[in-house]
Amino acid sequence: LNRRLAAFGTTIFAEMSALALRTGSINLGQGFPDTDGPEEIREAAVRALRDGRGNQYPPGPGVPELRAAVAAHQERFYGLSWSPETEILVTTGATEAIAASLLALLEPGDEVIAFEPYYDSYAACIAMAGARRVPLTLRAPGFRPDLDELRSLITPRTRLLLLNTPHNPTGTVLTPDELSGIAALAVEHDLLVVTDEVYEHLVFTGAHHPIAALPGMRGRTVSISSAGKTFSYTGWKVGWVTGDAALVAAVRSAKQYLTFVSGGPFQYAIAEALALPDTFFTGFLADMHRKRDLLATGLRAAGFQVYEPEGTYFITTDIAPFGDEDAYAFCRALPERCGVAAVPNSVFYDDPEAGRSQVRFTFCKKDEVLEEAVTRLGRLT
Amino acid sequence: LNRRLAAFGTTIFAEMSALALRTGSINLGQGFPDTDGPEEIREAAVRALRDGRGNQYPPGPGVPELRAAVAAHQERFYGLSWSPETEILVTTGATEAIAASLLALLEPGDEVIAFEPYYDSYAACIAMAGARRVPLTLRAPGFRPDLDELRSLITPRTRLLLLNTPHNPTGTVLTPDELSGIAALAVEHDLLVVTDEVYEHLVFTGAHHPIAALPGMRGRTVSISSAGKTFSYTGWKVGWVTGDAALVAAVRSAKQYLTFVSGGPFQYAIAEALALPDTFFTGFLADMHRKRDLLATGLRAAGFQVYEPEGTYFITTDIAPFGDEDAYAFCRALPERCGVAAVPNSVFYDDPEAGRSQVRFTFCKKDEVLEEAVTRLGRLT
Ligand SMILES: CSCCC(=O)C(=O)O
Ligand SMILES: CSCCC(=O)C(=O)O
Repeated sequence: LNRRLAAFGTTIFAEMSALALRTGSINLGQGFPDTDGPEEIREAAVRALRDGRGNQYPPGPGVPELRAAVAAHQERFYGLSWSPETEILVTTGATEAIAASLLALLEPGDEVIAFEPYYDSYAACIAMAGARRVPLTLRAPGFRPDLDELRSLITPRTRLLLLNTPHNPTGTVLTPDELSGIAALAVEHDLLVVTDEVYEHLVFTGAHHPIAALPGMRGRTVSISSAGKTFSYTGWKVGWVTGDAALVAAVRSAKQYLTFVSGGPFQYAIAEALALPDTFFTGFLADMHRKRDLLATGLRAAGFQVYEPEGTYFITTDIAPFGDEDAYAFCRALPERCGVAAVPNSVFYDDPEAGRSQVRFTFCKKDEVLEEAVTRLGRLT
Repeated sequence: LNRRLAAFGTTIFAEMSALALRTGSINLGQGFPDTDGPEEIREAAVRALRDGRGNQYPPGPGVPELRAAVAAHQERFYGLSWSPETEILVTTGATEAIAASLLALLEPGDEVIAFEPYYDSYAACIAMAGARRVPLTLRAPGFRPDLDELRSLITPRTRLLLLNTPHNPTGTVLTPDELSGIAALAVEHDLLVVTDEVYEHLVFTGAHHPIAALPGMRGRTVSISSAGKTFSYTGWKVGWVTGDAALVAAVRSAKQYLTFVSGGPFQYAIAEALALPDTFFTGFLADMHRKRDLLATGLRAAGFQVYEPEGTYFITTDIAPFGDEDAYAFCRALPERCGVAAVPNSVFYDDPEAGRSQVRFTFCKKDEVLEEAVTRLGRLT
């Protein structure tokens, strides 16, 4: 393993999911549902397979049906209009979209400002690109970005802002004011923005606003989303990038050498998923809202300090009430202690001390599973 | 697009396939079959989908069933034994395996020796890693590697040999002697070897020998293969890496941040495919052998100089008999001239002059399609 990646051994998600499997624990660590998405979407994949659609290399930018569906979805929900021909690129989930964007757009030595705590692939991809990450720390209890601090972090080497809203793991949803402030800085300093919006349909407080829609942003923003979280087929790994043609062409240049293409038949199924009626999206949100409240209440009753998320399907907690334990040690022991797995936010900070007592739980599980988890967590002392 | 990738705009495969689509030509450019693989494999994917296997994130290294099947396949065909737990990693096709291997193992400034002409992602991934490629040119008509030349290319900066056997686009299959010579140099100079063996079951002359099996090579070799070419489901993009635990762990570190995981349900289906009886593999090879001869005969009759391939499903030709045209220009014009698309080998050489008159055709198509293509090519003057 080379020096750049030396710090990134195994993603925390793989580590904690393996631990959950090994101990037979309820896995509230890695964010994936325990119930597959709509049957009709799965059957759409079966039809594609049997009709021979996507069994051979799909076109590099993705199958036309999916690119058209992404365009229609962005128009329907945000009034954004993208050309399916030149402004949309299908990827192997958001993970590949992030990797390709950073590998395409960064020069070695460039600085990237990213919210901290961050999803672990961000730091690894910045490192692979030979660039340097500069964290803008979101601090408990509110986890809001401080725009003055953001301004102070910008240097002549700053090339790119890496955003994530709704934000994993804190659940912060950027407000229109925050987005305007960030956009103004991007314009003023001529920065690119890469924004990971995979939880776009999981907003409980406020609403999701794509920064690409703000004045001056269209030509400098790469927006990323995916089907996994919205349609509950995380194993299919179908994601996409939208943006100005020049930016999308750049991302495609890197993407085509990372995987070339992927998930042929799934691309057709997700094209149908994106066209589901509004009631699907509102129903999914209502379900998840109820689950959020169920888990938040249970965690509080079990003694955790709960930071109620505005979005995503994660709850960040503080474990200080249980003593002065480090979150990573706590999560490594939790399966043995009570049969529940979680993820330590500490690994998402450059300075692990900053998230020392933060532990994340997901609530994208069956109600009875959440109830059982909460019962087990209630036995912690 | 950053400087590293600036030279790698659009892969030739995407460009020529798009041209074939636009002109309604027979596409003998990009290597993908026009007939899907075994129905039972497709139905295995349907079962996985419907049983809910792989619809959510599979384990980072791949589902255990597929890792076990890869191990059994390598044992059956090559007597190689790998631990499914630590020595096998599932990837998004060979493309991701190559990207992850190079991004994991190379330091900026390292030199990589690779056979030229090369599959275009090799050069792009070496560039993304900040390393430098050093071509060992395979020259017409034999396209054999010159081991003295290889020795002379090794410097103190050389870190890795990037092999590909059977070799795309020339069809060269490395002999046991050549492999021993290469292995000896790798051992003598303590080099890593990354070897792309996706055409392992497409060898018409001689046999496929994995270099990993040679003395001294197990601890320094990353072997790559995939399901796409062998089972004719190129759109699923299921590939894998085998190697010593330390090397596989390094590759996994990069891979997990490129896509995390992919193709959940397809992983189960390919596990079944790898267990198909020997008759599947011999039948597939016999079919392709016949197609090779059909296309080779037709190309000769049409006036091409044919370099008969020992393996892969590609034939490299020389277009000198048609005049002094550059292969790229020839391939751009070919669809309009006669309704057939091909790929210019010139783009796979650092010095395009070296492959100036070489054009590649694939024969992984229905017999009647090959016959029609040959008829059309016969009209060239
Ligand atoms: C691809 S890792 C697992 C899913 C996820 O996004 C998370 O748990 O944060
Ligand atoms: C992934 S690109 C297309 C397939 C291929 O390997 C080739 O045509 O050389």
